[in-house]
Order: sequence, then structure tokens, then C-alpha cells
Amino acid sequence: MDTFPLTVGSVTRALPVVRVSPTRSIPLIEMLGDFELTNAVADELAKLIPLETEMLFTVETSGVALGHAVAERLNLPYKVARRHRRSYFKNPLIQEVEGMTLGVHDTLWLDGRHAEQLVGKRVSILADVVVSGSTNASLAKLVERAGGIVLGYYSGFVQGEPTIPVNYVYRLPTQLEGTPV
Amino acid sequence: MDTFPLTVGSVTRALPVVRVSPTRSIPLIEMLGDFELTNAVADELAKLIPLETEMLFTVETSGVALGHAVAERLNLPYKVARRHRRSYFKNPLIQEVEGMTLGVHDTLWLDGRHAEQLVGKRVSILADVVVSGSTNASLAKLVERAGGIVLGYYSGFVQGEPTIPVNYVYRLPTQLEGTPV
Repeated sequence: MDTFPLTVGSVTRALPVVRVSPTRSIPLIEMLGDFELTNAVADELAKLIPLETEMLFTVETSGVALGHAVAERLNLPYKVARRHRRSYFKNPLIQEVEGMTLGVHDTLWLDGRHAEQLVGKRVSILADVVVSGSTNASLAKLVERAGGIVLGYYSGFVQGEPTIPVNYVYRLPTQLEGTPV
Repeated sequence: MDTFPLTVGSVTRALPVVRVSPTRSIPLIEMLGDFELTNAVADELAKLIPLETEMLFTVETSGVALGHAVAERLNLPYKVARRHRRSYFKNPLIQEVEGMTLGVHDTLWLDGRHAEQLVGKRVSILADVVVSGSTNASLAKLVERAGGIVLGYYSGFVQGEPTIPVNYVYRLPTQLEGTPV
């Protein structure tokens, strides 16, 4: 099997299958660069977001276009946590992500200018794909540290068994039969 | 002066003014997280893109939502160069960016799966802000190495004197009077 069929709304894609270990292959979901798939997922994901949401929060890079598309559907502001420091940040919040592998850490950054706008706001955490949930749990910590209230986690796809409760549009397999190309 | 007024289409924003050196302050344009401004810029930028364009090409992160929005307006595919290697890349093209400061380099990555789709295609390079033009010149090199044809450079904003010919919606100042906060 070299592709995996996916249908979301009226959009159909043949996802490439990639080998992630000698014995394991998974379909690769990539919405970046695909505005039709992004919009189809955003249509479905927007329906899951609680009505009381005042702000959406996601992380670069793959979440950006989806964040934009869901934000415009719900007419809500969205914020994007960064994975690297930018020179213009002012009093940024810095949050470690605990990786699956002991000792491996990513870092999330939220410019203080944006953190200020989260104070007292009801925030829905948005993702394109959730695997372990560790990045999204760190996004929630950023919201809370900024003074916002986390309503929940909302993702286009789940591919794994996240440690957080995620509302999602579509579940992708984590093990495919057959041999990838 | 602590903000700089910007109007694009029907959208008005007060851009924060940031100090970039002891004697120089500039307005900070940030479209990431602002779907209304992104869409307003995309409306104008889409008008500048040549009709013969078959594909759009931009770079993460700030170009992603604009790429999505212009792509959907023109019903064109878009591709996104990455600034870091991803584990699932297959035969990626790697392109150095020559920075303004001697010896400082960024690196752009294009997954081989996406590079294949540029072969023989007429490509317009898309940016949110062009300053020196070095990143966009490297995007053009990636297109050519992948076998595509570069039609030109198209940007929401220009803020500086790029070394490449850029078609843009709005020019931002590189030096503001007064004292930033």
C-alpha cells in the first residue's frame, strides 16, 4: 500500500504512506499547501468548537492555515504559539513541551503582546493532528499562564492515543498492513 | 509614536512600533493570527499574480495563512518551503539563504514529494513581507532547481530596499520619527 484514501466532506485525497520504523508505516496527513482539504477540515472542525469560545489558540506551522480557516468561519480571533524566538518578542511566555522520549524537549513561545490578549478569555485549543497530546497540553499551560480559561482540545485528526481528551474530525491509523514504498 | 496606522481595503490596524536599534524604530506587521487583515491583503495581492501562474510558492511561518488565502482566491495549488528538516522528508532540496550579515545563514527545505510537483510549472513566489529579498531569492532558486519557471515575486508588504523586483500591495516605512515605547 503506497497511499491511504481519505475523504473529508467533498474532498478526497490519497495520503502518502511513510515508514516510521522498520516494522511500522502510517499515512502522512499534510494540510499545509492544500487549501481545499484545509477548508473541508475547517468546516467540520468549526462545528465542534464550543459556542462560548472567545479565542482560538494553535501552534506553528501546520496549524496556521487551519487556524486561519476556522477563525474566519467562526469570526473569532486566533493566536499562534511559535516554536522559535523572534527578535521582536516583548516579555514572551516560554513553555517546554515534554516529548515522548525522555530528555527530548521542544519549546513554545508566546509573545507578551499576544499573551496580554488572552487574559480572562475562554480559549479553544486547535490542532491539525494530535499524536501524544504533549504539544497541546503545553499550549493549554500557556493559555493558563497568560490568564485565559481552556475550554478543550479540538483537532482535525488524531493519530495515536493522546493523553488529553481531544475532540476530532477524523482518526488516522497508526499501523498499516503491507509494505510502504 | 507607539502605533502606526495601516489600512488595506476595508481593514484598519494600529501596528505596534518596535525599536530595531538604538536609533531606529519600525512598524511591526504581523498577519499571523489576523484573518481579516490576511484576507484583505490576499484580496489585493491576488490581483497582482499573473494569470499564467500554475502554482504559488511561499515559506513558513508567516506566509502560510496568506498563501492559503491567495490560493483559494485564485483556485491554485500552493507549496510551502520549510525552515527546518522534518523526519518524513524524502529526498529534500536544501537551499541556503544568504543573510544580510556575513556568515549568517538560514536554510530552506523542500520535501522531494513537493519538488516533483514543481517540474515544468509556472510559479509565482509569494511573501507576506519582503525586506532584503534574500529569502525570496532563495525560494526562486528552489523553484528552478526543482525544474519550475519563476514568474516573479509578489508580496503583501515591502519594508526596505529589496535586491529583487517585488510586486507589492503596500510599502511600510523603515524609519519612524519620534520615540517608540
